[in-house]
Formats: sequence, C-alpha cells, structure tokens
Amino acid sequence: MNVKKYNGLFYKDGKFSPVRDILSVEIGLSISVNGTPFTVTMQTPGQEKDLVRGLLFSESIYRELNAHPKLEATGINEDGYITAINLVVPDHLVLKDFAGTRNVMSASSCGLCGKTSFDDDSQVKIINTGTLDPALVGQMFDQVSEQQSSFQQSGGTHAAGAFTMDGTMLSIREDIGRHNAVDKVIGDLIYSNLLHEAKCLTVSGRISFEIVSKAISAGIPYLASVSAPSSLAVDVAEEAGLTLMAFCRNHKLTVYSNTGRVRTTDIAEAMAPVNRK
Amino acid sequence: MNVKKYNGLFYKDGKFSPVRDILSVEIGLSISVNGTPFTVTMQTPGQEKDLVRGLLFSESIYRELNAHPKLEATGINEDGYITAINLVVPDHLVLKDFAGTRNVMSASSCGLCGKTSFDDDSQVKIINTGTLDPALVGQMFDQVSEQQSSFQQSGGTHAAGAFTMDGTMLSIREDIGRHNAVDKVIGDLIYSNLLHEAKCLTVSGRISFEIVSKAISAGIPYLASVSAPSSLAVDVAEEAGLTLMAFCRNHKLTVYSNTGRVRTTDIAEAMAPVNRK
Repeated sequence: MNVKKYNGLFYKDGKFSPVRDILSVEIGLSISVNGTPFTVTMQTPGQEKDLVRGLLFSESIYRELNAHPKLEATGINEDGYITAINLVVPDHLVLKDFAGTRNVMSASSCGLCGKTSFDDDSQVKIINTGTLDPALVGQMFDQVSEQQSSFQQSGGTHAAGAFTMDGTMLSIREDIGRHNAVDKVIGDLIYSNLLHEAKCLTVSGRISFEIVSKAISAGIPYLASVSAPSSLAVDVAEEAGLTLMAFCRNHKLTVYSNTGRVRTTDIAEAMAPVNRK
Repeated sequence: MNVKKYNGLFYKDGKFSPVRDILSVEIGLSISVNGTPFTVTMQTPGQEKDLVRGLLFSESIYRELNAHPKLEATGINEDGYITAINLVVPDHLVLKDFAGTRNVMSASSCGLCGKTSFDDDSQVKIINTGTLDPALVGQMFDQVSEQQSSFQQSGGTHAAGAFTMDGTMLSIREDIGRHNAVDKVIGDLIYSNLLHEAKCLTVSGRISFEIVSKAISAGIPYLASVSAPSSLAVDVAEEAGLTLMAFCRNHKLTVYSNTGRVRTTDIAEAMAPVNRK
C-alpha cells in the first residue's frame, strides 16, 4: 500500500466539510554502494531494488546488465518501509569516485526517511499569524493565471506566487521546475525586502516534501497548490505549523494541516480531526 | 523570451500534419559561492539572481536578508543565456563546507548549459531500430491507465511504462517523482533481462532534459509523454537519435525529433523540417 488516508477540510461555495482523502506516501531512500553513500532520493515506497538498479544504471555508476548483485535493506522505519539500501558489487565494476557526483540532500535533518522531527532546536516552527479567508485563495490562483506568460504559450512551466494575508500579490515567478519557481519567488522577496510580508505561497505542481521544506525555511505559514500533496508533505506541514491547502481548483480547495488558521465554521472544524502520526 | 518555436508533426485520426509549437526553454545554470561550485540546476532562463538567492536561502547556505551581495555572471552561452553565476559574499556568512551538500549533476557532459554535444565518443547515439506505428502510442497510454493503481486513488503519482515496437507492455512503475518512475522501469527491465527489447518509454509528466537523458542512457529509441517537452529535451533528443513524442492525449500526439522513425505519409514528412540549432 503506497497510499495513506488523511483528514481534510474541503472548501466549496463558502462552506467547509470534512473529507477523508487518499494521498500518496512519500519517503526518503538512502542509497549506498559497497557502504559508500551515493544519494538520498524522495520516492514512493515499493520496488526499491528497481529504483536503485535503474538509477545507478542511468547515472553510469553501475551498468552491469548480466550480474545479479546483492541489495541489502540497511534501514527500515516504523511503518515497515525501506529507508536505506546498500548495493554490494565488486569494486572494479563501479564508477570510480562516484561519491559526491549526486546530491545527498542537504535538508537531511527533517522529514527524510519518513520521520517528521521538527521538535529539536535546529528546526523552524511557524508561529500563528492570524486566520486566512479561504475565499482569497481562489483569487490568488486567478491572479497567477492572469499574470502567467509563458505557460499559456507552451504549457510547460510551473508558476509560484507569494501573497499577503489579504491576498495582495508580492511576487510571481515561472520555471520549468516547480522547485525553481519557488526558489525564484523567495529570492525575489529577499531582494524586495518583502519576505516577512509573504504569508501564502502558491504553487502549480504537486506538493512534495521539498516544496514544504522551502516554505517552512522561508517562514511562510500557508502553502497552496492546484495539485495533490504527498503524505510526507502533510506530516511535515502539520508538525512545522504550516497550513497546507491542496487541489485548489475553481475556487475549491482542501486543507490538510493546521486547519485552525483557515477561517472555518465551528462545526466543520470540530468534525475534522488533526492528522497526527 | 523563455520560449522557443519548434517544428513538429501533429498526429490525429491516423493522419499527420506539420505544426510549429512554442516550447519552454530549459537550460543548465551552474551556481558557485565565492568561486566554489555549489550545484548545477536545470531552469528556465531569466531571474537567475532570484533563483540563486532563493536557493541558497532555502538550503541554508547564505541566509543574510539585509545584505546586497554581488552576483557575477561567469558564463553566457551563444544564445545570450546566463549559464553560470557566482555569488560573492564574506566567507564567514556562508555555511561551512557547503560544497558537496547538493548535487553537481553527474550528467555533466551533455546538454547542460544549453549546449547539445552528442558528437564526442563518450556519448550514446541511438541507432535506427525500425518505424513505429503512431496508433500504438495511444494504446500504450491506455494500457498504462488501466494498470495504474495508486494514481486513480490519490492523483499524486507519475507513471512510466516500457513497450516493445508492437506495443506490448514490458514494465510499468509508479512514483511520486517522474524521474523515479523512469528509474524503476529501467531497473525492472534490467532485472527481467528485457532492456534490449524496450523500444518505447512512456511518462506521465513533462519531458525535461533529465528524462531524455535517462532514455538515451538506456538506449530506448522512443520517448512519449502526455505533457510538454522542454526546448533542451527536443534538442538533445534530436542529436542523440531519440524520437520524442509529446502531448500524447486521447490518441493524438506531436512528434518533435527524428520524425523519420514514426510511420508518416511522405507529404507530412516533407513539410516538417527537422529541428536543428
């Protein structure tokens, strides 16, 4: 099972109702070759040996086709998911000096391996900043659509935007990578001295752990996307104090974490329990 | 201008017609801090300083908010796009030992910085393997849809598939990351000794440089996606001998490179010139 059920508040026509949605599980997998770390990649659990073999092939680290090398699961988390794998192969068949050729994710202290540990001192915790009117979120995406230039032409870029609590747009950036679009928005906010005023970040793609991490790192309390979040995105958002809104389409949306910071009716709020591991 | 026009062959109802489509430009940007390489990221040209500042902030390499550090463009390509940027800041304000915390892409010899150089010996060039019936591509995506499990539930995962020339499915894998889905398919093909029979790779997300690189590295001559390709994806595909098909929806598609390997009428083929830089 690579999906997990989450509680959410579905917003439509000015009203909230509790929903229970199925989200994809996202988890960090640490890959080593003969004990030497190669990379940490975020993935959907399952078929880890295919991922390791294919990735090492694509990156030319180990391209033997006829061998049947041993893969050791060197880490398993409390849900039974594999979090670390080591490939055992003759050293002379491995690309020399492969270590450091790929990213060992620098955000290594949070969320990886499916653990959400925002409790220690080094982690950012977003503090309460008021209550957002959910009706504004649809308007934010309308503003992004109006301003988007290359997307309408090519259909190939993502857009990210930053807004104040009253829905004023502070920045919009587009890029072929949604991570880049978010980084460009944050960079723009730094340059214009507006980072502290940015309260809601909108993205056009799905919400992964990495996108949530960028919002938290920037201290932005609301994150909204037209697409689906991963399980880990919701888990990390919940613990870090980020309000995550997904499936924001046609002025509808679903809130998955820290729902108390979105203007709701008491009844709906009471009906939707918080997602806790 | 972050878009570029490309020639393609649009396939619908069994017929091809030449089209001229607008695709997003994708390019590699090498980022250094005080001369030390930090990472190479694929991006859409423009607002490079926002990207660099935001990325270094998100990754906690340089988080000064009130400084106005100098950014040097240390590389510019023939199209006038910036390909390398160096941030000049006081060393004590930079995260210690940041080098190696992020990926310096290992596929460094091809396509990055907007140059497509598949001519040298180290590069793979896919050789001709026959002619694909475009009607089969729609059927491939139908098969993927039928087999997809978690996508229908969560809307949050990508699917990749591998097929023979006659449209027989060899592998299908899903993952929250489209790169992972492709790596899992390739790994599965290696395990089942079917890599040499895989001729068409289907993906559900957009086609970036990295996805094209994985197909080329695996020697798979056809790559098909429901979504848009980037400019660099088409450039690299053209030079490496890969036939790239995009916007594969409802049994329609557009071929952007090596059109000669898709079964077409002579007229349409003659009307659609090859995309050459």
